[in-house]
Amino acid sequence: MRAMRLHEIGSPLKLSEIPSLAGENDKVVISMKCAALNRRDYWIQHGQYPGIALPVTLGSDGAGTTDGREVIINPGLNWGESVRVQGPDFNILGMPTQGTLAEEVLVPKENVFDKPNHLSWEEAAALPLAGVTAFRALFIQGNAAPLEKVLITGIGGGVALAAMQFAIAHRMEVCVTSGSDDKLSRALAMGAKGAVNYHDPDWIKTLTSTFGGFDLIIDSAGGENFSLMQRLVNPGGRIVVYGGTLGKIQNLSPQVMYWRQMHIIGSTMGSPKDFSAMLLFVNTHHIKPVVDSVFDLAETNAAMDKLRESAQFGKIVIRIAS
Amino acid sequence: MRAMRLHEIGSPLKLSEIPSLAGENDKVVISMKCAALNRRDYWIQHGQYPGIALPVTLGSDGAGTTDGREVIINPGLNWGESVRVQGPDFNILGMPTQGTLAEEVLVPKENVFDKPNHLSWEEAAALPLAGVTAFRALFIQGNAAPLEKVLITGIGGGVALAAMQFAIAHRMEVCVTSGSDDKLSRALAMGAKGAVNYHDPDWIKTLTSTFGGFDLIIDSAGGENFSLMQRLVNPGGRIVVYGGTLGKIQNLSPQVMYWRQMHIIGSTMGSPKDFSAMLLFVNTHHIKPVVDSVFDLAETNAAMDKLRESAQFGKIVIRIAS
Repeated sequence: MRAMRLHEIGSPLKLSEIPSLAGENDKVVISMKCAALNRRDYWIQHGQYPGIALPVTLGSDGAGTTDGREVIINPGLNWGESVRVQGPDFNILGMPTQGTLAEEVLVPKENVFDKPNHLSWEEAAALPLAGVTAFRALFIQGNAAPLEKVLITGIGGGVALAAMQFAIAHRMEVCVTSGSDDKLSRALAMGAKGAVNYHDPDWIKTLTSTFGGFDLIIDSAGGENFSLMQRLVNPGGRIVVYGGTLGKIQNLSPQVMYWRQMHIIGSTMGSPKDFSAMLLFVNTHHIKPVVDSVFDLAETNAAMDKLRESAQFGKIVIRIAS
Repeated sequence: MRAMRLHEIGSPLKLSEIPSLAGENDKVVISMKCAALNRRDYWIQHGQYPGIALPVTLGSDGAGTTDGREVIINPGLNWGESVRVQGPDFNILGMPTQGTLAEEVLVPKENVFDKPNHLSWEEAAALPLAGVTAFRALFIQGNAAPLEKVLITGIGGGVALAAMQFAIAHRMEVCVTSGSDDKLSRALAMGAKGAVNYHDPDWIKTLTSTFGGFDLIIDSAGGENFSLMQRLVNPGGRIVVYGGTLGKIQNLSPQVMYWRQMHIIGSTMGSPKDFSAMLLFVNTHHIKPVVDSVFDLAETNAAMDKLRESAQFGKIVIRIAS
């Protein structure tokens, strides 16, 4: 079977012919229809991840068939016993385990779920990692409630878009930020009530004058602007952090934190229970993940180039079999 | 009646003879036995507080009698409807309202509670503000559970000591920090399992090698060391912030936050429900607040000097009537 493999840090992936897989006691082989890329794949390719074992088939997201059943894969392996936090054996499909950028992938039976009927193969492959990460950030760690105001930063990324779709379905009032006016327009068209460009030096003022404060902020950036966002949080409000692309958080005021009884909460991936709840939510609300573009398996390196530029709006999907 | 009043920012308090108070519809006059000082009184005296109205009788903590009933006072006024956060009308007894450093104080009936029988007047006056702040930080915002490991910074302050006593009563394993070896010894004598001096450059290493990580940290400092404490938090753990004496928090890692699913939570004072629950806890466990020293009302300025030096271990109490 064919797989896109990383043989050397910093090199392009290679399309390789490797032996076909066989099921094991508690694991099944999925015949892949589509996979999807995540920022994680890029980091691993460039060595910015601990414990990289080579060669490896990358890819955490995917959908396909097994024994005639149409399925999607929960990419979180060995979460552990606590609902609060993943255990020490937790890892994500696609390094060190062999991932979804291949015609076949071997996954634990407990990680296999029915594909939502309303999703195409491309949409189904775009859902798992971003969906469970957004669901946990918004509902489990963020405790999101209908009618609350939520700000989602960096709209266009898979998690941010999923969080926006979930929040709108949950009847929250959603604002978004981006450095791209085009992405902001697309978010407004999808139902966001407000959208500001963070390159505008007055973006914080614009948000406060238009929307007042936010009950919840979902952020993946961190960095210098994080402490500005502290001023955007309503008393009793929460900021959930699921990424840190802009680096360390500076100048956080303890006084603002305690006087506003503010919560800043880290969130990553999700438990098996979170994944099931996310699927139920997606099925109930007929949510369709946003697919930015679709590449064939042999074109995965071109897809990785697109991922690097962060110009995408939604998920970059890899078609493996039609 | 006599009251210790602030007439001018930065000046000593003046013992003044002012008119006796009368009860109103929903307010009662307490004949004060003892009051206690808080850092807040010092800040107000030195103008480091918003909206200072002069002259004012300072003092948030107190115990006394009303209609023959022995009572203590909940210093939190007009908390509001939400249990999550105080409303816009919330304020603390003793500026702008006239405080407890007087022979009489007028307080809403709903803020008056039976004095715990096992407490002296001095101990009762030492309890309210520090007790409710510690209770909310530890149990409501911090979600403290028996057998968890908790680190309490800056032991010696009233809130930190109350938090330590509550945590020990709740069968938690408690470690403390201080810049004073004498305070550390006293905390160990009271039941802390570990105590480190933060002037020791290896204090973080000492804590991790001896205790591993902590499930909960209760901090009033903020500042540069806060990000070091991030490394002391177990996966799924919490840091509760109720003060910020060392200023803004720097170099907080979003990656550590999200990978450990960490919570950083602000906490201040407590709701009426928190106050009642704190009193029940103190009565159930027969907890006695630590009294550092007792001054007569006329000696309040000497007591304020002692407060400024932060050399105290426990509360500084003012005796008003015997």
